[in-house]
Amino acid sequence: MPVPPPQTPRSHAPRTSDLDRPDVLTLDDVLATDPGRHRVLTGDRPTGALHVGHLFGTLQTRVALQRHGVDTVVVVADYQVVTDRDDVGDLPTAVRDVVLDQLAAGLDPVATTFFVHSAVPALHQLMLPFLSLVSVAELDRNPTVKAEQAASGRTSSGLLLTYPVHQAADVLSVGGTLVPVGRDQLPHLELTRTVARRFNRRYGRTFDEPSALLSDAPLVLGTDGTKMSKSRGNAIELRADADTTAAALRGARTDSEHVVTYEPDRRPEVANLVLLGALASGRTPQDVAAEIGAAGAGSLKRFVTDALVEHLAPLRARRAELARDPSVVDEVLARGAERAAALAGATLADVRRAMRQTT
Amino acid sequence: MPVPPPQTPRSHAPRTSDLDRPDVLTLDDVLATDPGRHRVLTGDRPTGALHVGHLFGTLQTRVALQRHGVDTVVVVADYQVVTDRDDVGDLPTAVRDVVLDQLAAGLDPVATTFFVHSAVPALHQLMLPFLSLVSVAELDRNPTVKAEQAASGRTSSGLLLTYPVHQAADVLSVGGTLVPVGRDQLPHLELTRTVARRFNRRYGRTFDEPSALLSDAPLVLGTDGTKMSKSRGNAIELRADADTTAAALRGARTDSEHVVTYEPDRRPEVANLVLLGALASGRTPQDVAAEIGAAGAGSLKRFVTDALVEHLAPLRARRAELARDPSVVDEVLARGAERAAALAGATLADVRRAMRQTT
Repeated sequence: MPVPPPQTPRSHAPRTSDLDRPDVLTLDDVLATDPGRHRVLTGDRPTGALHVGHLFGTLQTRVALQRHGVDTVVVVADYQVVTDRDDVGDLPTAVRDVVLDQLAAGLDPVATTFFVHSAVPALHQLMLPFLSLVSVAELDRNPTVKAEQAASGRTSSGLLLTYPVHQAADVLSVGGTLVPVGRDQLPHLELTRTVARRFNRRYGRTFDEPSALLSDAPLVLGTDGTKMSKSRGNAIELRADADTTAAALRGARTDSEHVVTYEPDRRPEVANLVLLGALASGRTPQDVAAEIGAAGAGSLKRFVTDALVEHLAPLRARRAELARDPSVVDEVLARGAERAAALAGATLADVRRAMRQTT
Repeated sequence: MPVPPPQTPRSHAPRTSDLDRPDVLTLDDVLATDPGRHRVLTGDRPTGALHVGHLFGTLQTRVALQRHGVDTVVVVADYQVVTDRDDVGDLPTAVRDVVLDQLAAGLDPVATTFFVHSAVPALHQLMLPFLSLVSVAELDRNPTVKAEQAASGRTSSGLLLTYPVHQAADVLSVGGTLVPVGRDQLPHLELTRTVARRFNRRYGRTFDEPSALLSDAPLVLGTDGTKMSKSRGNAIELRADADTTAAALRGARTDSEHVVTYEPDRRPEVANLVLLGALASGRTPQDVAAEIGAAGAGSLKRFVTDALVEHLAPLRARRAELARDPSVVDEVLARGAERAAALAGATLADVRRAMRQTT
């Protein structure tokens, strides 16, 4: 398929007339039918530099969407860092790192709209009407919130409880029509759709119900076989150098069997290394496992290291280049804030007009 | 006590160093000890023109505070009208009416800061960090919310559940040190104090804990002996003319006993008329009841009508005068929004600095 050049951002929401927008789409669905009619809203909490789990899990999808003409909006959720922690660390640096990693991974600094939560006040003003459209019972029974609550090991806060409503404000404020989610996050997006639907019914048609873009990206685990996360010390950061990457992979957990196979359920640690090598080299995991086979885990680790270092080399070079001039990220965020504020301001005006809060 | 002239608004919060600010004060407490160190934050949802219940219940206290040099900030909570209803009616007109009624009642259009919620985005940006400081259990068990929930007869919404947190944002955003409340609203203010205390403890001292100003104003009921409210059709609006006021009082409910007495528990409807006559004429209810006595209910109603129409005449004249030029309210709200936005913006900057969300 020919890849269209990156588009410059549109200033108006790509509203469609399909009231019955499907609730779940795949990447193929989106690319098959006029990608340009979509605006994707996605983002991250800036809790640390991004790692290879992010790259293969979400960043490559973002890049593919943008390359095919989907208007791409990425929120850096600086305010929401406190959802599961008290101390936000050095947030300005974390924000820069998250943006640099994504630019390095291939998101176009001109075509993509990056904005930080705190730069778009109008988004926050949508919380109040949106909260009025959601019952306490619905918030209480959200399974994603329950899981996050259990994982955090903290007393459930008002912020965590209302998190899906903030997400609705993120998506609907900028006119997002497409939200990439994992299967476990579908209930979050369902609440966004519910808010849009109820608002339309009560105050007149204002929002399109966004669709979930269900990811089929493989889940890359950390070097210890559990979820990859900076705080667990099992992550391979995108920005790391070749030596750091090699050291992390040398220390990766394997098992006592000598022959390398690809059996994710029975041998998760080895399978994860095989998967990583496969993703980095553009081959299938089965193919990689067959090639290494009896050469064993040491050989597998060398293969993964070489493949990953080679795969990440252009990204790392681009990142170093971008990081040299701090004004690059400053300008990307300033331009993004301006566009997001314009979109969210227009949405807030629509909302207030629909609710007859203005003359 | 000599009444100092109205003050022009200060641009900085009257921060005091008393970490152990008492949680409840009376009007006498405030007036006895340097009223100028206080900033009162109070307000109304614009759900209709104000009535004599508001005048004797809260407006006269606001006027007294302002006259004695307390910096007075009044929020017109336009966004929060949807807390217990879907349809906000003609909100711009309702906002104007609420402001006109208060200016007519004696609040100084220069010294008082009136602002509408929607004009101060920074206030809404405090919701997110504040929600992180409050547990779901604390929100669930707030007795004021429970009572309002029961009274509304609606499914409890996320907005009603988080209402006390919005109130904390109202108060703390503008640096309020004093919040007039009825006894039933003390739990709301306790939550504001909790938010301030926890924020200070977690991120460093940023907020003063505001005190409740507990009202000792008598509760004036409607003409049917239940809570006075426009929607119940039992209210005497401040802006009504003499004939409308007389008609409303002629139709007021009394009881089958001929002699007028002041027995609020046994004879609430008659006692309420006596109270209204007493408040309007500056006498005690006992004195009014003794004077009317055997002359009966008809005589009482004529007395109350005359006293109220005379008491309200200057207010009504001032209101008509103010209403003649729409730019008066426009200017009051524009000036108020400017000041409230400056106060809330400074607070938000303090909050973000304390949370290390900015460089």
